[in-house]
Amino acid sequence: MDTLHEPTPSSVCPLGGQLQHAWERIAEQKRQSELAKIPGEWVLAPSVVAEAKNLPSLTDPPFIESLLDAETCRITTTDATELLQQMASGELTAVQVVISFCKRAAIVHQLTQSLLEIGFDIAIRRAKELDEYFATANQLVGPLHGLPFTLKDQFHVKGLETSMGYVGWVDTFEGQKGTNKERRFESELVREFNTLGAVVIGKYMGEGVMQALRGSVFGIGTDIGGSVSMPASYNGLFSLKPSNGRISMKGAAGPSPGQQIMPAVAGIMAVSIATIRLVLRSLLSTEPWLHDPYIVPIPWRETEEYHAESGDLDEPYRPAFGIMESDGVVTPHPPVQRALKAVKEALSRLGHKMVPWEPPSNQESEAIHGQIARGDGCADVWEVLQLSGEPEVYEIRGLFEPDGPRDPLPLLKYQEIVAHMKDYRNRYQEYWMSTAENSGNGKPVDAFISPVTVTAGLLPDKFCYGGYLSCVNVLDLPAVVVPVLFADKNIDKADENFQPLSHVDKTNMDAYDAEAYHGSPAAVLVVGRRLCEEKLLSLAQMVVDALHTGGPDSGC
Amino acid sequence: MDTLHEPTPSSVCPLGGQLQHAWERIAEQKRQSELAKIPGEWVLAPSVVAEAKNLPSLTDPPFIESLLDAETCRITTTDATELLQQMASGELTAVQVVISFCKRAAIVHQLTQSLLEIGFDIAIRRAKELDEYFATANQLVGPLHGLPFTLKDQFHVKGLETSMGYVGWVDTFEGQKGTNKERRFESELVREFNTLGAVVIGKYMGEGVMQALRGSVFGIGTDIGGSVSMPASYNGLFSLKPSNGRISMKGAAGPSPGQQIMPAVAGIMAVSIATIRLVLRSLLSTEPWLHDPYIVPIPWRETEEYHAESGDLDEPYRPAFGIMESDGVVTPHPPVQRALKAVKEALSRLGHKMVPWEPPSNQESEAIHGQIARGDGCADVWEVLQLSGEPEVYEIRGLFEPDGPRDPLPLLKYQEIVAHMKDYRNRYQEYWMSTAENSGNGKPVDAFISPVTVTAGLLPDKFCYGGYLSCVNVLDLPAVVVPVLFADKNIDKADENFQPLSHVDKTNMDAYDAEAYHGSPAAVLVVGRRLCEEKLLSLAQMVVDALHTGGPDSGC
Repeated sequence: MDTLHEPTPSSVCPLGGQLQHAWERIAEQKRQSELAKIPGEWVLAPSVVAEAKNLPSLTDPPFIESLLDAETCRITTTDATELLQQMASGELTAVQVVISFCKRAAIVHQLTQSLLEIGFDIAIRRAKELDEYFATANQLVGPLHGLPFTLKDQFHVKGLETSMGYVGWVDTFEGQKGTNKERRFESELVREFNTLGAVVIGKYMGEGVMQALRGSVFGIGTDIGGSVSMPASYNGLFSLKPSNGRISMKGAAGPSPGQQIMPAVAGIMAVSIATIRLVLRSLLSTEPWLHDPYIVPIPWRETEEYHAESGDLDEPYRPAFGIMESDGVVTPHPPVQRALKAVKEALSRLGHKMVPWEPPSNQESEAIHGQIARGDGCADVWEVLQLSGEPEVYEIRGLFEPDGPRDPLPLLKYQEIVAHMKDYRNRYQEYWMSTAENSGNGKPVDAFISPVTVTAGLLPDKFCYGGYLSCVNVLDLPAVVVPVLFADKNIDKADENFQPLSHVDKTNMDAYDAEAYHGSPAAVLVVGRRLCEEKLLSLAQMVVDALHTGGPDSGC
Repeated sequence: MDTLHEPTPSSVCPLGGQLQHAWERIAEQKRQSELAKIPGEWVLAPSVVAEAKNLPSLTDPPFIESLLDAETCRITTTDATELLQQMASGELTAVQVVISFCKRAAIVHQLTQSLLEIGFDIAIRRAKELDEYFATANQLVGPLHGLPFTLKDQFHVKGLETSMGYVGWVDTFEGQKGTNKERRFESELVREFNTLGAVVIGKYMGEGVMQALRGSVFGIGTDIGGSVSMPASYNGLFSLKPSNGRISMKGAAGPSPGQQIMPAVAGIMAVSIATIRLVLRSLLSTEPWLHDPYIVPIPWRETEEYHAESGDLDEPYRPAFGIMESDGVVTPHPPVQRALKAVKEALSRLGHKMVPWEPPSNQESEAIHGQIARGDGCADVWEVLQLSGEPEVYEIRGLFEPDGPRDPLPLLKYQEIVAHMKDYRNRYQEYWMSTAENSGNGKPVDAFISPVTVTAGLLPDKFCYGGYLSCVNVLDLPAVVVPVLFADKNIDKADENFQPLSHVDKTNMDAYDAEAYHGSPAAVLVVGRRLCEEKLLSLAQMVVDALHTGGPDSGC
């Protein structure tokens, strides 16, 4: 750990130099106060930070691991189930596990500025309590005992602030002063994790990189149009965006608490499906529907999971999959095309019928999505920005007029769109049912597979189409990201004869740069039936297993 | 059947005399064309209709039964399970059962004008198919084989029109001409009933009286603020208004398809909980979630039903109930108060803890309800009225300005109310969980019991408060109506010392007239956890059983 020493402002202040505005000073103070929570011995030397900047990819575990002692490295690369076993046998303590991940997360944060709130001190305190319980009771507190996790800064955690990245929320409770709730109020999901034994080590706005660099065992995000699936896809991770009603959002900070037609849902990111399964199964064991009226009373259904050995032994039931290689709106880049082909071939080799997936258009759901999610003109976001005077970040500038939010849609127009959404869901479901005709087993396909987005990884300012993801939010379908392979400039060459379907299709394909994307992870999205997360996770695992049974394109 | 003969216009035209407006003529023509579907031998003599008008209560089975032959009477008073058994053994045919109920429904209709669509011919045709199937396969088509039912004229049935009582919808498909869908398109729920073997005999806007007089085995209504529970309560029936997501509304006619925040739900009315249970269980056996994306994939859960013998044999688990004798907003009339006391005493006698139910106020949910349900200004209803020029009926006049619908709420205001609704649901659930402290068994109460409305029966123009019912729609909780007793002028006397809580409380109690309500059914509402209909029905049955185990107030 000789590469670590005291922080210097220059290593951590991306703005640098003069801070002219009050909001800049508050933001910088907030960043520094969080950084100050990192124990001195975990602080990186400026030379290390500089070295990391020159790496071809920051999401490079070997580099991170070169900065860690062997024990920390071993613990943080052990999978969740194994960690639990070692804690249950007394081989490891919760304090050891938590400190190891805190140390690694501290390094990840210094290289990537991915944490908004650092909670190492409260995490280690909680780990001590878990160890004390274990010493007395000789059993784990719960099925996630001692597992450190990070979560999006939309959830309130006792002892931490919630700013969601808004300067105006610093030192407030969701923008309000004097509520006495700040650093005290706790979201329902956090309460559930506490009872399960899981330990919050920090809150983020960049979980993809945190998981990719294994700064925690799992991450909890929220998703209204791909905010769980995209970071997972771009970082070579697995994720689950469930249907609305399985993971609690009760007591999480906005935005838009009154937008309940297509609400944001909490999702899970991790390095394996097994970990995601463990987390969801554990959460459901707390009977969250007793505490959150928006959760459906469906416990974990083991019987819904697909097992290869199920069915008649002579001829086991073989799930069929829909496969969408392009939605006919925007064509995926070559690495994503190759990932889809790899999955299709791997499953076909095992005898799974792959049915071309041609449902109602993603263009339709994309239009519905924007109007439902932003039909209110995003006035609440604008108002929060006014609290501090900070300008909106580049990515959301298009949402506003120069001097304020757009006019909200009239209610009747909004309800027309809701009715359209309902009709779209009905037609999509009817299409799904119609695949029984060509699935080969007489039943509708069990899941469908599509691109996550049109790119492998994301170049700044190059995001131009989210239709493969907004569709699953409009439909409220659960979706799992499965990483497949890495973009390779020698294989994934631009197609000279590409015929664009539209202007946006051309813009997207013109932006393909084999060199720039080289090495980026390409993933697929596996989409299941509404509220059938158990089955979906088991089918996604089947996709992984199929890729790993070999073949020329069997990927990472 | 010598009391029956050919219809005359005067016996069926409530408007009488001249029909000045085109819409009146269309309405009258529609009524006559439906009446003409009643076979001559089932047509009542004017003298019988006149005699019925002089009865103290039309919902008087003995009178109806005096008009029926013994066979029809026997079949139509046999319960659903027994009918199924007799059809399964070949003792009865589906045609016999269907004809018997059609005959009885024809009489009910002539006395009460409760059917908008008469489907006896298509019902008898379907019954013949069922009998043919039975003759060949030697088994019933499904678990509702041959059971005649009626449903609200919001559901589309092949061979019948859908007008919802709007003159402007006559000879159209939901107001549109030339779609070729009228009398062809079928709602999902109707498709499910077909596969189960149930037989539609007509569509209504008055199911309470149809069930009370046993014109069909069960009725399907829809409910957004008590439209299933109220007619059940006022007619001495059982009903279930489930949570949203268990019974399909797909392909049902409006209103307000874009109002998905608190949508209308389909519910079931019948003369016993056993029949309601049979219907819901059968519907869920069709896996409706595969066909309707708004249905949650929860099959019938036998394990969730309460059985008196469950738990430790020495000390079985004894459910606890919340009991709300008044919501502190509007006090129920004396017969309803007596019904609540009877239930409370009957359950207490059996050792069930009755916990005073003091949740967040019904005044709050009543305000939320109105704004969510009618925040759009009901423009769609207004527009449909313009199709024919018919005026709005008295009961909804207050919804409109003299020259058109009210302005819809602005979207941001509407979303504020949705956020308030969410907060209300959270607080209500927290209150429910808090009852673990005084339920006596360490768990929150299993269900709560409240008035259905403040009156036993309903006098014209005297409805002034729906807060006991709008609350369950705002909360999306399942609710069962259990009839308890009949108002008795000699027992249910006005309280001379009544101290009104508010203006509306005074208005309501001033309207109590022991003489006028004498003989009307008084019921209670049993309310369960969201999407836990199985458990709720079993608890409601327990309430019925408790009332029937005797005691001075054990009711009807």
